[in-house]
Amino acid sequence: MPGNTFGEIFKVTTFGESHGPAMGCVVDGCPSGLEISLSDIENELARRKPGAKHGSRDEEDKPEILSGIFEGKTLGTPIAIIVRNTNQKSGDYDELKNIYRPGHADFTWQAKYGIRDHRGGGRSSGRETLCRVAAGAVAKKLLALHGITIKAESFISADIEALRDEGDSAGGVISCLVTGVPAGLGEPVFDKLDARLASAIISIGACKGIEFGAGFAAASMKGSENNDAPSADGKFTTNNAGGILGGISSGQDIFFKAVFKPTPSISKPQKALDKDGNVVEIAIKGRHDICIVPRAVVVVEAMTALVLADFLLLSGKKF
Amino acid sequence: MPGNTFGEIFKVTTFGESHGPAMGCVVDGCPSGLEISLSDIENELARRKPGAKHGSRDEEDKPEILSGIFEGKTLGTPIAIIVRNTNQKSGDYDELKNIYRPGHADFTWQAKYGIRDHRGGGRSSGRETLCRVAAGAVAKKLLALHGITIKAESFISADIEALRDEGDSAGGVISCLVTGVPAGLGEPVFDKLDARLASAIISIGACKGIEFGAGFAAASMKGSENNDAPSADGKFTTNNAGGILGGISSGQDIFFKAVFKPTPSISKPQKALDKDGNVVEIAIKGRHDICIVPRAVVVVEAMTALVLADFLLLSGKKF
Amino acid sequence: MPGNTFGEIFKVTTFGESHGPAMGCVVDGCPSGLEISLSDIENELARRKPGAKHGSRDEEDKPEILSGIFEGKTLGTPIAIIVRNTNQKSGDYDELKNIYRPGHADFTWQAKYGIRDHRGGGRSSGRETLCRVAAGAVAKKLLALHGITIKAESFISADIEALRDEGDSAGGVISCLVTGVPAGLGEPVFDKLDARLASAIISIGACKGIEFGAGFAAASMKGSENNDAPSADGKFTTNNAGGILGGISSGQDIFFKAVFKPTPSISKPQKALDKDGNVVEIAIKGRHDICIVPRAVVVVEAMTALVLADFLLLSGKKF
Amino acid sequence: MPGNTFGEIFKVTTFGESHGPAMGCVVDGCPSGLEISLSDIENELARRKPGAKHGSRDEEDKPEILSGIFEGKTLGTPIAIIVRNTNQKSGDYDELKNIYRPGHADFTWQAKYGIRDHRGGGRSSGRETLCRVAAGAVAKKLLALHGITIKAESFISADIEALRDEGDSAGGVISCLVTGVPAGLGEPVFDKLDARLASAIISIGACKGIEFGAGFAAASMKGSENNDAPSADGKFTTNNAGGILGGISSGQDIFFKAVFKPTPSISKPQKALDKDGNVVEIAIKGRHDICIVPRAVVVVEAMTALVLADFLLLSGKKF
Repeated sequence: MPGNTFGEIFKVTTFGESHGPAMGCVVDGCPSGLEISLSDIENELARRKPGAKHGSRDEEDKPEILSGIFEGKTLGTPIAIIVRNTNQKSGDYDELKNIYRPGHADFTWQAKYGIRDHRGGGRSSGRETLCRVAAGAVAKKLLALHGITIKAESFISADIEALRDEGDSAGGVISCLVTGVPAGLGEPVFDKLDARLASAIISIGACKGIEFGAGFAAASMKGSENNDAPSADGKFTTNNAGGILGGISSGQDIFFKAVFKPTPSISKPQKALDKDGNVVEIAIKGRHDICIVPRAVVVVEAMTALVLADFLLLSGKKF
Repeated sequence: MPGNTFGEIFKVTTFGESHGPAMGCVVDGCPSGLEISLSDIENELARRKPGAKHGSRDEEDKPEILSGIFEGKTLGTPIAIIVRNTNQKSGDYDELKNIYRPGHADFTWQAKYGIRDHRGGGRSSGRETLCRVAAGAVAKKLLALHGITIKAESFISADIEALRDEGDSAGGVISCLVTGVPAGLGEPVFDKLDARLASAIISIGACKGIEFGAGFAAASMKGSENNDAPSADGKFTTNNAGGILGGISSGQDIFFKAVFKPTPSISKPQKALDKDGNVVEIAIKGRHDICIVPRAVVVVEAMTALVLADFLLLSGKKF
Repeated sequence: MPGNTFGEIFKVTTFGESHGPAMGCVVDGCPSGLEISLSDIENELARRKPGAKHGSRDEEDKPEILSGIFEGKTLGTPIAIIVRNTNQKSGDYDELKNIYRPGHADFTWQAKYGIRDHRGGGRSSGRETLCRVAAGAVAKKLLALHGITIKAESFISADIEALRDEGDSAGGVISCLVTGVPAGLGEPVFDKLDARLASAIISIGACKGIEFGAGFAAASMKGSENNDAPSADGKFTTNNAGGILGGISSGQDIFFKAVFKPTPSISKPQKALDKDGNVVEIAIKGRHDICIVPRAVVVVEAMTALVLADFLLLSGKKF
Repeated sequence: MPGNTFGEIFKVTTFGESHGPAMGCVVDGCPSGLEISLSDIENELARRKPGAKHGSRDEEDKPEILSGIFEGKTLGTPIAIIVRNTNQKSGDYDELKNIYRPGHADFTWQAKYGIRDHRGGGRSSGRETLCRVAAGAVAKKLLALHGITIKAESFISADIEALRDEGDSAGGVISCLVTGVPAGLGEPVFDKLDARLASAIISIGACKGIEFGAGFAAASMKGSENNDAPSADGKFTTNNAGGILGGISSGQDIFFKAVFKPTPSISKPQKALDKDGNVVEIAIKGRHDICIVPRAVVVVEAMTALVLADFLLLSGKKF
């Protein structure tokens, strides 16, 4: 359980440090015969790139497929995809070598491993999500054949331009809607569909919560309000369950919301601990997103796709 | 991935239908030499029993240990615990054989398996959580040796007595605080500590959401507010991270909240689908909790204990 | 990886010490709708019982099904089966409390766990295989629906009666033939069909080797002799591959042989180490098989069935 | 269970087709702080290269480390290593596009996936073992810190030069001795140390059998002969158990033998099936080893190292 592999049948392993030679993923368990082109991967990676106004690190992020595809189709063997890191500015991080940035994994990483690649967060960098997106692109191709579509949307209440001036940052919420999921996906006890989705989404760095359907609002609803009632046409008048009952998809749309905390790297001075336990004041340089939420949209979709592809194959469906 | 096993090193498998002969669990991977008595299990199971005012099915829930304990200590072999079902009133469910109860897993189960034990929800009954609590009791004994304590608390805003008169039900929120967790537990990418906790808690039937630390409130906070700042004494002035950074425990208390939907079984008449797709009106009889939240408290603690025991052993700590 | 669970999709967990309250297994992942009766389990367990001449411990071995079966059919939920231990003579083992029996797991167990149930070998007793047979009975029912049959046969060269007089024991070889396996089962790299079968069979206590098809004889064959040549009718003139090529079933019969060492418990005096490192002489009392090979036949079949059921479900076939 | 990942804690995923862009592996779960240099990998890969007399495909096999190493030490993150394929002669395989080579995975692969990369065996090529050797090099570094050494030796009875003239091939046997293994590694039921080693070694293409200690000879031994007797100095006079009792290492040397079949690719004409079921005669061109056994020695060591590293970490030992 070293934690860099996700899924049981549609299984993804990722690797790569933010400032190392390359990032990559290995997608194992994708059925043979699926058409995949390099542009399928590129298009999804492009959605993860920063917009002009975010000012974050901009890389070409050009994927290379090393295995698993032959004459444009999957072989049923592991699909390895790598992206070279080309635009590191590791020098930006020299000052941070001995400081634990607030809100980052610096301290926890040091506590766990006793060693870390301090340049850009190493493996705990947001750049790690690039591999999830590449793998998600493959999963989406598989799901599309089954008529399943995933669409995520971000909501940010803050004034980004004002925050830029302040040297501060913002969080936000991402909603995700999945249509076309057949009834019957998910396992009824520990591997409930919502449990697996929760694990997948919360595993995205900066995500601090998730709710399905009515979510936290259900705490103040009555059973008679929260139960989704059937209408005369065999459909339902509400979707408080978010498309999942007892951990199994109901055939209604799957719907959930996830919250992302503000980017912890801010240029505004803040207090931090150094490796000797002293409280110091730092102002973080480097190229950081004021709000990572827009870029996380495609990551949320990718993780959702990985979960659904896994359960789809587990249900015995190939294509 | 049939879904009735949880954990990697401290691994729990559960079984049993609500109205079958018995419920049970097998705890595999518990280190040898840990003292466990039958009353350790009984005490936790007692916390899951309904209070007088809830009116739900009351069973003796007497556990029997079948293996893994010798002369009061664990052998390092699988610990099997069973509880006989003794107070089933299966007749209560005869009318429901061909009806899919709203908010329940009846329809999704039928879609998945094509067959189901309709009596009391079968495997998707809340009674399934009994096995989680028994296994959690073992995990808690292990954690206690490491100074880790787990304490969950429920919050219900509804007027339970009024709902009883209406034949309706209520949801609520359970908060959970874990103290004594060393820094360094959790894996940094897919198996983040919060991702695993989210999966564990959302896998409890009726749970529809979870948030860590500041949770959904972080969406409207600035980075400078959300980052937990160190104080002069080396501690922190806030715990917006909920004790987890980058998926790894920081040594601060772990804190999360989970929402539970209202009990879907209500005696108040409601619309439902039958197996032929007709909309019918039903009033659900039987012994159901008006609010399951108080009984879910120990289940939340149990699932939290399973996750922490697993990561503790994974970190190489025995005792 | 605590090691008491076998399989990925058709997943079996076993528990129980030889002299504890009960042995048992949980079969998770069996598809719903499969007909299983108690006698299906009983008949296989009966094949594992000792013959009159072996003089080994004879128990009633009456299985009880605790879950997963409803109205004679599987529900798709975990099938728990237990067998109470009723005929222990734990007193036979008092003298062995501080002695490590040669050829047994006594010393290795102590080294691993620091504690052990010395009565009858505890979890490392041959009695543990009872659970494998019960689970195998379920797997065989599933395979039978797909036309797959498994037949194992034992070969023992020793004179059992003479060994009884000497207070000694014998080993032997078990051959196993599987017919009706479709081409295409198995995974081509680490989870080859033969690799999984090897793991399954060698995991049976006392098994010290396995060979597929021509096996060790292939070391002295030429490629032109060892390659299985097609005949005019599209079949093959030989089956040196044992029905598996590149880790994947070819559609030919699967064939392998496994060797079992002589029962290490012998009444003839032999040297042993005690817990203080002294060499002592012991003559082991108790009820032990002179040769366990005849009783292991059904265990070999059971483990073979578990592997094939797992790969069959993984291939997407239900029934 | 798509089958390209091996291990639970020290977890290796491999990828790459023989004639695709690259082969590679991802080693996840290696503890942080272990010194690894590129030459550690290169040296082991060099041992897998063909000798002059074998005439097989010769590639530079230059590894590149993409992640997981920082300033010469492991970070605790996934170590990705790739080797570009540079010397493919895919044209050699054009004639074989529609023919299933005897003794190869061609037919079984087609039956399983319905598509295959026919050039050089694709993923079922012996070239796949390159990734195992790279991963094994990392495992060996870890084991060396614990004083564990692995040494394999090949035995071939055939006259290689005569076989070359005949256009035929030979098999052989590889013995493997592991010293320095502490007592207590392995799990006592399904994940026995010998069961896992058997799975690991049989998963090497062309391996058709394995035996531990006395192995198949134990079938004709008496218990009094086969039991390893302690001598006065606390050691043992024999090692018929091969260093493993009840699935757990005893502290004696671990010893096993594995048989490898003759290379199925021979230039001598032989009968084969084509994709339409016709029997045709073929003489296989291309660069093939007359005997792969010498090159498999380092692969056997690598797989042994992966198993031991996994169990070592599972036992709680880091370094």
